[in-house]
Amino acid sequence: MSEHYALPQDAEDAFYDALEAGDLERLMGVWDSSEDSACLLPMQALVRGPLAIREIFARLFKHQSGVELSVRHLHWIESSDLAVHLVEETPLATDPQGPPPGPIYGTNIFRRTPQGWRLVLHQNAPLPPPPDMRPPLEL
Amino acid sequence: MSEHYALPQDAEDAFYDALEAGDLERLMGVWDSSEDSACLLPMQALVRGPLAIREIFARLFKHQSGVELSVRHLHWIESSDLAVHLVEETPLATDPQGPPPGPIYGTNIFRRTPQGWRLVLHQNAPLPPPPDMRPPLEL
Repeated sequence: MSEHYALPQDAEDAFYDALEAGDLERLMGVWDSSEDSACLLPMQALVRGPLAIREIFARLFKHQSGVELSVRHLHWIESSDLAVHLVEETPLATDPQGPPPGPIYGTNIFRRTPQGWRLVLHQNAPLPPPPDMRPPLEL
Repeated sequence: MSEHYALPQDAEDAFYDALEAGDLERLMGVWDSSEDSACLLPMQALVRGPLAIREIFARLFKHQSGVELSVRHLHWIESSDLAVHLVEETPLATDPQGPPPGPIYGTNIFRRTPQGWRLVLHQNAPLPPPPDMRPPLEL
């Protein structure tokens, strides 16, 4: 199931396509197969390694058949063997009655392996509220 | 003001020391000086480049003289010229009357430069509530 992704962007496109399709095998084929891989979904505990990552996405796909996100690139940092992409992910509304889900930040880190570029870290963080509703700046 | 950090960990230690001391010049000396640098503090908009990063930390230090965090390493991904450190940051309580601030996730990405290792991305994300209080898994 694992394809050879010649560029970090190819692996990222495959990741979001597999997420939209709810295709667990294709999704896992994008991930680095080493224990270095780690995933931090919104308001979930950090999971590490391919087995734990498979389990969290299997649970996600049981709950929702697929997740369609509109993805906007914010910032790239690339080196010869690691690439960091910051994106804004906006879930497409699935409930026409409910409020549209807001965008969140996503960070995708890819590593060059002998099998092509693979996802090694996926992390989400909330986007801030509008400036006049933001809490005071603190760490 | 810029020191040569021989290891990503040296740059990370200097970052948290400068944060605790409220030392803006030392803090900025840890950051990569290129426009690749980016910072995502809790519930703040993404800022990019050394000037914007200086401004956000200057505002933080105006609000608080320094920020003391207990830092626990969770996960490292390192390559020859980029290093990714996932940590748990627990602010030390400053208000003995108030509830202790909870821990948050931090991601620090360092790049090897001719001037040593420098911080190129700092990002925070909330830690989830306890398992029985977590919202349903979704993206």
